[in-house]
Amino acid sequence: MTCETKPLEIAVLATGDELINGEMADTNTSRIAGILGANGFALLESRVVGDVEQEIEKALKDLAEKRQVVIVTGGLGPTEDDLTARVAARAFGRRLALNEKALGQIRDFFASRAMEMHARNEKQALLPQQSTILGNRLGTAPGFSLRYKECDLFFLPGVPKEMVDMLEQQVLPRLQLRSGGVMPLEERILKVFGLSEPRVEDLINGQQLPEGVALAFGVDFPFVHVKLRARGEGADQLLDQAELQVRKLLAPYVFGRDRETLAGNVARMLTDAGLTIALAESCTGGLVSQMLTDLPGSSVYFERGAVTYSNAAKQDWLQVPTGVLETAGAVSEDCAKAMARGIRDAAGSELGLAITGIAGPAGGTEQKPVGTVFLALCDGRTDQVKGYRFSGDRERVRHMAGCMALEWIRRYLASRLESRQP
Amino acid sequence: MTCETKPLEIAVLATGDELINGEMADTNTSRIAGILGANGFALLESRVVGDVEQEIEKALKDLAEKRQVVIVTGGLGPTEDDLTARVAARAFGRRLALNEKALGQIRDFFASRAMEMHARNEKQALLPQQSTILGNRLGTAPGFSLRYKECDLFFLPGVPKEMVDMLEQQVLPRLQLRSGGVMPLEERILKVFGLSEPRVEDLINGQQLPEGVALAFGVDFPFVHVKLRARGEGADQLLDQAELQVRKLLAPYVFGRDRETLAGNVARMLTDAGLTIALAESCTGGLVSQMLTDLPGSSVYFERGAVTYSNAAKQDWLQVPTGVLETAGAVSEDCAKAMARGIRDAAGSELGLAITGIAGPAGGTEQKPVGTVFLALCDGRTDQVKGYRFSGDRERVRHMAGCMALEWIRRYLASRLESRQP
Repeated sequence: MTCETKPLEIAVLATGDELINGEMADTNTSRIAGILGANGFALLESRVVGDVEQEIEKALKDLAEKRQVVIVTGGLGPTEDDLTARVAARAFGRRLALNEKALGQIRDFFASRAMEMHARNEKQALLPQQSTILGNRLGTAPGFSLRYKECDLFFLPGVPKEMVDMLEQQVLPRLQLRSGGVMPLEERILKVFGLSEPRVEDLINGQQLPEGVALAFGVDFPFVHVKLRARGEGADQLLDQAELQVRKLLAPYVFGRDRETLAGNVARMLTDAGLTIALAESCTGGLVSQMLTDLPGSSVYFERGAVTYSNAAKQDWLQVPTGVLETAGAVSEDCAKAMARGIRDAAGSELGLAITGIAGPAGGTEQKPVGTVFLALCDGRTDQVKGYRFSGDRERVRHMAGCMALEWIRRYLASRLESRQP
Repeated sequence: MTCETKPLEIAVLATGDELINGEMADTNTSRIAGILGANGFALLESRVVGDVEQEIEKALKDLAEKRQVVIVTGGLGPTEDDLTARVAARAFGRRLALNEKALGQIRDFFASRAMEMHARNEKQALLPQQSTILGNRLGTAPGFSLRYKECDLFFLPGVPKEMVDMLEQQVLPRLQLRSGGVMPLEERILKVFGLSEPRVEDLINGQQLPEGVALAFGVDFPFVHVKLRARGEGADQLLDQAELQVRKLLAPYVFGRDRETLAGNVARMLTDAGLTIALAESCTGGLVSQMLTDLPGSSVYFERGAVTYSNAAKQDWLQVPTGVLETAGAVSEDCAKAMARGIRDAAGSELGLAITGIAGPAGGTEQKPVGTVFLALCDGRTDQVKGYRFSGDRERVRHMAGCMALEWIRRYLASRLESRQP
């Protein structure tokens, strides 16, 4: 422990009209929070203001008075609504001056890409005096930092990749220096699918978790997150114990932890098991194929996917019998089964998975309302089929159907991998 | 014009550990901003704090002193980290009491769904005294509002659908009443693909736009947004004029406006033209099929999609000749063309579109580095093929390839629809 033993009080200020007028959500703050968290720092507050000088200035001053570290994103670009450097200069009583080092960096950026530098980009080198330049390896906007009273302010670009790189390369080392060795708060998130949040909370609250482990809950629809936190030397072991307890309690509903995703874990398990899969999707329209191929190396386990919207496609590619389509219909147990068998045969893969349903808003009937979805899984030994009735709009039905399909494969693979164990 | 002629000063406070620890981004604020904007109100500032009583209280008090309207989201749920009502009571010197009306609403919600009410949900009816209940048609958490000095505070759930419904049904009418007829600021956003932001700004800044129209720019990678704004009686006509000017200047790079999306416009144009399409995707793994079927009514124009990852799939379903795969390879002009022809033949659709490329991180060679993508479009008369080399990681390459494919169809359909005009 050195001079500052309390965690640094850190705030984020994101600027940009587009973040405050409904055009897009501020995703930089959660990126920053994630990186800070992984390095033992925590964000206390974030704010968003538009490209309005007065609002930026008020927020800068207010945060600089209250917090020890302020990370500002956005407004460093070459266009006229990029105001941050000018406003920062005014807020903290500095002059705005052409920074030769920053100008050199901008020139180098263009030269290294054999691109012509636009006159407008020179503006990006106009920075408050007594600033420290933060180099930008990925773009033209130099970042900068300045000190006001007890507060260190870091000004980063709004472009996510540039911001992240600058945060990791330039800001984190400075925070580590200043904090002089804070014990990081470690967090472990267990991700749950298939139980509601109150149900999860009820199940866990009856338990005695190891002392020093704090508990919190969150929802990222349709998933529930159980968050375990501990600080200090033995944090890792405490979290290991608590994780084991929670997993025992909630198994088989826990599908992953921390940054793991459902699709990512299915991909890993397919790879581990050395199995290939092929998909036949109707109502999800390629969503599950897209999720499973989002990951590097997906060609190892993913053979092909069929988005069979029309009946003709179901017959051609999946050999769904005309009789099934005419009698049971395209949204039925029989059709789902035939699709799963058909895609497996067509692909020559070990597994075939099919999804057919009514995502809406049109197409529902009394017997098969919007939200009716059938999933089928075929592994050459057995065909299994499951029926669901999801609630919500088109997007939600598609999303639930996709998640449910992935979760089914995950559980199937888990029991298959388990039965292999010695 | 009545009492308050200046626009209301509105702020948002979003609460939740998950919004400030990197787990997820705050998307409610941009939803609120969009709804406010569409109704003539503007958001000045938004803040995010975690589930920490002291931070919530400070932010509530600070905003209530500074702004006329504060919209708070989150923390109304049944679990222990849902603190908002308690903290609001303390911040504004009210007692927390069981609100019978709110309890009745929660009971009704469960009863109407024939679900059993969890004891924990009773906590949701503990609200600050002298609050006005805001009914929740979609969930258990009742919202509430209270007045502190000159500020109206509205407390809404964090669940997006519930929040949006309550905002539209309950908060907006109250804001309209209070503002007594503000002239809405109207905004029109033109969405551009294929020109950089500085290039777009250069092209437009030389122009004399109609007086009263303000101009701003934004980036939603890979798109550039040109934002035209005007207020008052003639705003619509002014924006019409300005839009026409910008469209003339930037055509054919403008692919849509306001809430329109590239995929949505392609869908509309396919429907208008009465054409069907089928897709053969390799590196994008179903992404474009998914985007085109995300929209209600997609079965009218979407026949089928093939996610042909393996060479076998390309041969079976798309009849790509073995010679092409052996000589030119799966990532080549020839293969893209054969895929487009093949999917069109298989589907019997008017259009066939193919995408093949190397999304990375592995699989690149010196001649065909990561980012190499070929697109082909076949309409039965001609086969066209285009080659690209996109930069960035796997996600970015896939995203760019998908957008470029959609943009190509859009331009193709635009010229086809145009040539039909009398």
